[in-house]
Amino acid sequence: MAPILLNSIANEHSSYIQQVEYVKNPHLDSMEEDILYHLNLGTKTHDLPQMFGDVKFVCVGGSPNRMRSFAQFIHEELELPGNIADIRDICEGTDRYSMYKVGPVLSISHGMGVPSISIMLHELIKMLYHARCRDVIIFRIGTSGGIGLAAGTVVITDKAVDSCFRPQFEQVILGKVIIRSTELDEDVAQELLQYSSELPDIPTVIGNTMCTHDFYEGQGRLDGALCSFSTEEKFEYLRKANEAGVRNIEMESTVFAAMCRVCNLKAAVVCVTLLDRFEGDQISTPHDALLEYQQRPQRLVVHFIKKRLGLIS
Amino acid sequence: MAPILLNSIANEHSSYIQQVEYVKNPHLDSMEEDILYHLNLGTKTHDLPQMFGDVKFVCVGGSPNRMRSFAQFIHEELELPGNIADIRDICEGTDRYSMYKVGPVLSISHGMGVPSISIMLHELIKMLYHARCRDVIIFRIGTSGGIGLAAGTVVITDKAVDSCFRPQFEQVILGKVIIRSTELDEDVAQELLQYSSELPDIPTVIGNTMCTHDFYEGQGRLDGALCSFSTEEKFEYLRKANEAGVRNIEMESTVFAAMCRVCNLKAAVVCVTLLDRFEGDQISTPHDALLEYQQRPQRLVVHFIKKRLGLIS
Repeated sequence: MAPILLNSIANEHSSYIQQVEYVKNPHLDSMEEDILYHLNLGTKTHDLPQMFGDVKFVCVGGSPNRMRSFAQFIHEELELPGNIADIRDICEGTDRYSMYKVGPVLSISHGMGVPSISIMLHELIKMLYHARCRDVIIFRIGTSGGIGLAAGTVVITDKAVDSCFRPQFEQVILGKVIIRSTELDEDVAQELLQYSSELPDIPTVIGNTMCTHDFYEGQGRLDGALCSFSTEEKFEYLRKANEAGVRNIEMESTVFAAMCRVCNLKAAVVCVTLLDRFEGDQISTPHDALLEYQQRPQRLVVHFIKKRLGLIS
Repeated sequence: MAPILLNSIANEHSSYIQQVEYVKNPHLDSMEEDILYHLNLGTKTHDLPQMFGDVKFVCVGGSPNRMRSFAQFIHEELELPGNIADIRDICEGTDRYSMYKVGPVLSISHGMGVPSISIMLHELIKMLYHARCRDVIIFRIGTSGGIGLAAGTVVITDKAVDSCFRPQFEQVILGKVIIRSTELDEDVAQELLQYSSELPDIPTVIGNTMCTHDFYEGQGRLDGALCSFSTEEKFEYLRKANEAGVRNIEMESTVFAAMCRVCNLKAAVVCVTLLDRFEGDQISTPHDALLEYQQRPQRLVVHFIKKRLGLIS
């Protein structure tokens, strides 16, 4: 744990104080009980500081099965005692999300799309607050469509951008739109990029990630139930995205970046590409290759965590 | 099956022809293979007409466990042969969605939020097209927050409206916003309302349903990780929604209505309220009561299906 503590001491005092309060909601302190409904946890039913107080790394991804595999992988890599078969889903009372805790690492699923991950993030951030966690780094490890990259390339997100390539997220509050910045932690991104060179067989780039609210029409796919544009229009859009520095497309990064930023959580997005969208729309990569691709962001983030924990130099 | 056939013959010929083609995409016919990636199905790997050609009713809801329970419930109610324990998840190769087929009824989960249900709908609608299904009615059966209604009230959606109470859905296509109508099938809604009076203990109303992209700030909740508005501003927004005819709030109805409308699928939204948002934000209803509430939309839709199949008069 020493490197983490050293790291927090190295921060400016003001940023340290800021990080203690992840939530930004004056109403919370007057609530007698806080039920984290979609996580099946609560402040009266669970001792959150005891359960989660030592969490330093949170890894989130779409698929519940993948996040269980990731928890098992982390358990092996950190050489923790106990049997990986005993790692249980902390949210097993609900099927909305799955959550696993392995030492100082939390692994949580968030489903697909901005609204789904946003519900999870609200409740996760409140959980970290109630548990009095400090100096947490959060990673989204996911899959994506690549733009001009070979399938299997890992993209560390520089800026998360919307479908017009702007680094912003539009949040509707009481029917009115407000704009939030989607800047991520530059230092964590650079550190990840540096570590990627230490790992074999993980081609990695840093670039912008476009977040859409739809997998088909919104990403310019020609193979949805609905499609009103031509092949040429599709390629023109992808070319423009590429010119704006977009290297991959997924469906959660803008709200992830925006919420973590407002809440002072250091955040990074690390997604592997499953195909090159200049070459097609359908994900026809063989199953075994897909599985291996999906492990690449996991391997990179585990390497980062082991470095930070001082387990490797 | 006779009542369904009679029903389809009773339609105007033009509407019958329209219903044959659920998809609206000229590119699909030139594809050699269509991989429905998130359903783990495909036109080359599966005999979709044989597997799904007789589907007449599709029921979708957020939670995979609830949609499995619904499939078992339908199996009992239709008095089909076989053991309910043998009903298997057709999408078991993926954990993105779950799908169960029971006689002419499909039960599918869609996760939470517009993007998540939209991916499923694209692939489901293509599946119905490839399987050459006809005269399908689709229901969303879900949970919601009520506005001025006792918890446990079932709301049949008249209009699905956005966070400004407009009956429209904004679809981003290649970075440009287009507006789609969210009108649902009036006849199916009225028929559901009529049948609700035949069932005991299911208080039911018809009204507008507001669809938001966020559970906390977007729905005026004071208990998220982020909240920048006052209690008074929250209630003002809920009152305005109420005045605009909104009776409940959920997170999928606008895109569901919009896509089904464009694709000529008759659609209805039937959601139970888990709380009255004028009384609070947290879902603190006891677990057993929540379970019973969640069965109410299921019971109403099963009653509709049995009527249409001529199993009850």
